Amino acid sequence: MLQHLFTFDDDGTTSLQRQLQSKLIEAILGGYFVAGSRMPSSRKLAETLGVSRNTVVAAYEQLADEGYLVSRERSGIFVNEHVFDEHAEAARIEISDETQFDWQTACNPTSIETSQPAYPDNWEDYRYPFIDGQYDQSLFPLNQWRECSRLSLNVDEIRSWARDSGYQDDASLIHEIRTKVLPRRGIQAHADEILVTLGSQQALYLVSRLLMNTTTLLTMEEPGYQGIRQLAQHNLCPIRFAGIEKDGIALHEISPQTQLLYVTPSHQVPTAVTMSREKREALIALANRDDFIVIEDDYESEANFISNPNPALKSLDFQGRVVYISSFSKALAPGLRLGFMVASPELVRRARQLRALMLRHPPANNQRIMALFLSLGYYDMTMRRLYQATNERWQELREALNHYLGPYIVTSETMGGSTCWVKGPPGLNSQKFVAAAAEKGILIEPVDRFYGGHDRPECYFRLGVRSLPKEKIRPGVEELAKLIDDIRADGDPSFGQHLKGDKLKRFLSNVTFTGYTVFGDPYRITLFADGKMEGVEGHNDEKQDTGTWWLKGNTWYRQWQSWSYGELLGFDIFITDTRIHWVRDGKLVDAANYNKT
Amino acid sequence: MLQHLFTFDDDGTTSLQRQLQSKLIEAILGGYFVAGSRMPSSRKLAETLGVSRNTVVAAYEQLADEGYLVSRERSGIFVNEHVFDEHAEAARIEISDETQFDWQTACNPTSIETSQPAYPDNWEDYRYPFIDGQYDQSLFPLNQWRECSRLSLNVDEIRSWARDSGYQDDASLIHEIRTKVLPRRGIQAHADEILVTLGSQQALYLVSRLLMNTTTLLTMEEPGYQGIRQLAQHNLCPIRFAGIEKDGIALHEISPQTQLLYVTPSHQVPTAVTMSREKREALIALANRDDFIVIEDDYESEANFISNPNPALKSLDFQGRVVYISSFSKALAPGLRLGFMVASPELVRRARQLRALMLRHPPANNQRIMALFLSLGYYDMTMRRLYQATNERWQELREALNHYLGPYIVTSETMGGSTCWVKGPPGLNSQKFVAAAAEKGILIEPVDRFYGGHDRPECYFRLGVRSLPKEKIRPGVEELAKLIDDIRADGDPSFGQHLKGDKLKRFLSNVTFTGYTVFGDPYRITLFADGKMEGVEGHNDEKQDTGTWWLKGNTWYRQWQSWSYGELLGFDIFITDTRIHWVRDGKLVDAANYNKT
Repeated sequence: MLQHLFTFDDDGTTSLQRQLQSKLIEAILGGYFVAGSRMPSSRKLAETLGVSRNTVVAAYEQLADEGYLVSRERSGIFVNEHVFDEHAEAARIEISDETQFDWQTACNPTSIETSQPAYPDNWEDYRYPFIDGQYDQSLFPLNQWRECSRLSLNVDEIRSWARDSGYQDDASLIHEIRTKVLPRRGIQAHADEILVTLGSQQALYLVSRLLMNTTTLLTMEEPGYQGIRQLAQHNLCPIRFAGIEKDGIALHEISPQTQLLYVTPSHQVPTAVTMSREKREALIALANRDDFIVIEDDYESEANFISNPNPALKSLDFQGRVVYISSFSKALAPGLRLGFMVASPELVRRARQLRALMLRHPPANNQRIMALFLSLGYYDMTMRRLYQATNERWQELREALNHYLGPYIVTSETMGGSTCWVKGPPGLNSQKFVAAAAEKGILIEPVDRFYGGHDRPECYFRLGVRSLPKEKIRPGVEELAKLIDDIRADGDPSFGQHLKGDKLKRFLSNVTFTGYTVFGDPYRITLFADGKMEGVEGHNDEKQDTGTWWLKGNTWYRQWQSWSYGELLGFDIFITDTRIHWVRDGKLVDAANYNKT
Repeated sequence: MLQHLFTFDDDGTTSLQRQLQSKLIEAILGGYFVAGSRMPSSRKLAETLGVSRNTVVAAYEQLADEGYLVSRERSGIFVNEHVFDEHAEAARIEISDETQFDWQTACNPTSIETSQPAYPDNWEDYRYPFIDGQYDQSLFPLNQWRECSRLSLNVDEIRSWARDSGYQDDASLIHEIRTKVLPRRGIQAHADEILVTLGSQQALYLVSRLLMNTTTLLTMEEPGYQGIRQLAQHNLCPIRFAGIEKDGIALHEISPQTQLLYVTPSHQVPTAVTMSREKREALIALANRDDFIVIEDDYESEANFISNPNPALKSLDFQGRVVYISSFSKALAPGLRLGFMVASPELVRRARQLRALMLRHPPANNQRIMALFLSLGYYDMTMRRLYQATNERWQELREALNHYLGPYIVTSETMGGSTCWVKGPPGLNSQKFVAAAAEKGILIEPVDRFYGGHDRPECYFRLGVRSLPKEKIRPGVEELAKLIDDIRADGDPSFGQHLKGDKLKRFLSNVTFTGYTVFGDPYRITLFADGKMEGVEGHNDEKQDTGTWWLKGNTWYRQWQSWSYGELLGFDIFITDTRIHWVRDGKLVDAANYNKT
């Protein structure tokens, strides 16, 4: 073994001792000789390598001088315990004294840009990680996954998955996808219309390699998923963008020359808006008319908390032009990398061949575990748990945003999901805001990566709750609100006339305030002379609450039964001709229109 | 749920009942309504879908007529249990009456040829599967893999692998590769010089996408691994071939214009010859001189049974121009898809980015299981077991080939491996031979796929023992030998003079036969007048045996102590001026040169 480590180059340009030193340094830094461990004796090493003992002794002495080795009397020569602190980088450069091959020139100049992660790798160390797409241990179905993993290691199961299965997928997983997963999305598919992939990313890669080239036109959402933009760039495929309306992609902005359309209808990435049923039908009609392919990335398909999920575009497609892409990773654990695509047999056949060229097939043990997990009903169970937890967190996030950030922000109107797309106050520099928040232990996502065009609004940011327990959401948003107050650079606006004394009391007795929540829902609050107040919210007045108000000096106090966490709060009141401003500590907390009755 | 399955197209061209029928057929064939199960009542289905009950009843009746459904009195309507036998394909065509999107035209015309498997999918059903690259349950380290799998599902372990790890590999797996796997091959590498891949295939794909284009010249071995040829074709990269000598690739056939060289030095695919140490050094010198990249696919690196394994080319590479590729899948289970590459940091950085674009990263749970498996010493244990089993099988295969097929075949000279590359008798059509063998329950590999040039010798085939227990090897080869006898089309050659009586006895008393085994090793057998005989084999007479011989009528009988399985066998003897031919039942069994002493 040892002699394999030490191959000497006898070109005569470098002395044997010098070569031995380099090799020893490599072996130490490479971990072959572990830090703190004892080195072989000089006699033994000399014998093994077939060099003179003097050469080894001289090399050892030199390395001791350089701090790689430490000599201990009567014990022998040891690797310095702190060798990595001192030498790791320096040594590498030092030993590379031979001409090195120039890889930069040798590599193809293809674009393989992949975006920097939106948050640091140690996101779990932050107090409030409002991020998307990560793992939450409390939602992982530990016992069920363990059970399926154990079952997959039965002798008979191993026998069937351990072999090289060539192009094929695990037949039981395909069966489960066809009969348990796809029907929930309204999709019926034959086995040869389904391909298992390493997460949805591999499906997108396969599709991009098969369908994109320098003359195909891709239309994608703006803002939209950066992954598809990177793949288009990799394949030198031209891109156009279509904006996002409150019910999904702006159809009139889809160029008739489009050959490929990438959409995320369930919850648009990154705004989380859901494409309406009507727009889905119109989109399929448009695709049929203009003859383009639709890539449907069914992100967070089932996390609709306000209405039922809409059927997938694929279920409305009678011409076989929709490529449906989905993933199990997000629901379970991103590290698993397991997803699938559904498309016409002809495309699936080609994608299967390309997949074989790329890596044969997705790991068969994971396919089998997933098949067992589905067949035992654990996936349904996991999705229900996930639905409930995400729903609670999402509602909590909405309430907190409305309460703490009401006058400053607008969010996209969504039916659910695990993220919130937020437009901050004008002038907010979201890069700086994200950095400032991170310093306070709050991770929020910058949004620059979602934009491909030149117009990149500065004041947007994004919050996710997939990895954040419910009880941390409110305090996290509260701290975020303080931060917005602190860094708003545009100074205080004029709040109008500061009401005091009798004037204040007269104004507040019998007045109605109307406005919109941060989600765009209308609300109406009426104050009565007797100190009671009533509020309704929603397009159909779905939500209602009552409370009380009173004055103490020139401060107006109010307390709802349940709204605004039922908290007692006091404000200074400023009005203009039509608007009321609630102000605390000189800062605007909320604003609305008013009507004296 | 159910209503998602049934989306109706109101374009007015197809009646509601017709659409419902189509959808029901799709749902039945798609497995949503399971064969033999009861359908929802017509009343319930009508309510759920919001159509009239008459429409449902009519659709049910029509489907019953067509054999999809079966009506059972007082029980309801059921899905026909035999629906798949009768309808699967027919129905698909029938329901596709809408214009279908033309995927053939839409797809890029890229070459994504992947070769047909060399053996049928149900290879385990054959009595003698002499195939390569498959799984052998008896060699899978079941308990150890189970243990590591269980350990990987500890809460803390899950926590660290379940998250989206972005571009990164499992740090503990990289550590194990650096300190336990690479030193065995003489390679020292830093963490940023290693990339985990989904088997060696993904490493090859990454390298091909990064380095190949229409102007790079790839040189590969001929015969050689078809996977690299397919990747070159996929990337429109020109290919040249260099032949195989007994110590590896023919260096003088490597064009000086070569930019990429693909080699399999440990055991050449498909001939299994091992590149000598001298040739390895000469190859690196050539690569340095002509400035080309070497892709070293280290297939079956440790299965050398005759001499120690040579250090990897990568260990001789001081300029960083060798890309080393290896796999864990073969040693454990091909279905796992786990391998790695070692190369300069610059190339690894680009490969990592491209890998992220393809699929983010290899599944993290498998990386962790493998890291645990290595750290607990189980990989070493598995490799030792595999070495021992393969060694025994390989020796058994050599003996059987020599014994049963001696005069007909020549094999490549190898140091080990799990395969044997065989040149059959002239005129053997190996395609027909492989097919005839399969009919007898013997799977051997055709070799056409290993050739890229025009010159494809017909009479070669390949035998593998990775998935065949030792005790099956001899009977398998014996049956194969019979088959060769049967299908040899060239008729019996002249064996020379048939020796009988005294002439026979005189000839055999004090004679020496010299020849070569099927592996090219020389042997020498001496017969003495007293009925004793002695044999030596090998370049240094390493193997020796003694035996006895006698005559019974005109038949010569002989029995070795251990050679030829120690079996008693009788032959007719034919001689020419220099050659002796052993003949049984009119068929040549062996031949040698002779010297009367």
